Amino acid sequence: MKYCGKVVVTLKPGVFDPQGMTIKNALHTLSYQEVEEVETGKYFRIILKAVTKEEAERRVQEMCERLLANPVIERYTFEVEEFR
Amino acid sequence: MKYCGKVVVTLKPGVFDPQGMTIKNALHTLSYQEVEEVETGKYFRIILKAVTKEEAERRVQEMCERLLANPVIERYTFEVEEFR
Repeated sequence: MKYCGKVVVTLKPGVFDPQGMTIKNALHTLSYQEVEEVETGKYFRIILKAVTKEEAERRVQEMCERLLANPVIERYTFEVEEFR
Repeated sequence: MKYCGKVVVTLKPGVFDPQGMTIKNALHTLSYQEVEEVETGKYFRIILKAVTKEEAERRVQEMCERLLANPVIERYTFEVEEFR
């Protein structure tokens, strides 16, 4: 069975996000004054083979911890669904 | 009312994704041989004020088109929810 894992990696609260700040300022300049905060992150879509959804979730979580996120400054969320 | 827009920007199909390729190879090296494809993208979380959810959605979509995504090579998806 094939599964699709969608991972979002963002900075932990309190870690300075200069890219988000720059985008917020750019949006204000473009007249989107209503924007109060912009947080940036990375997105990964992973297609993988696994026997069960639980196995796919376990493997994707391991990938996050070992490669995709830096646990010192980043946190991650992910969801896994069947891939058709 | 405050709303939270979550935007994912990915490359259009057919656009070469060297970062995704590198991550796929790294995952194979780390013994995740079951990984068939890795696609990378950008994630933005935007907190904004708006009168209605529809207005917030319209504004976030405009931001995607004008600043966050490059329509030549990228596509975007987003969702807006109430921010508490």
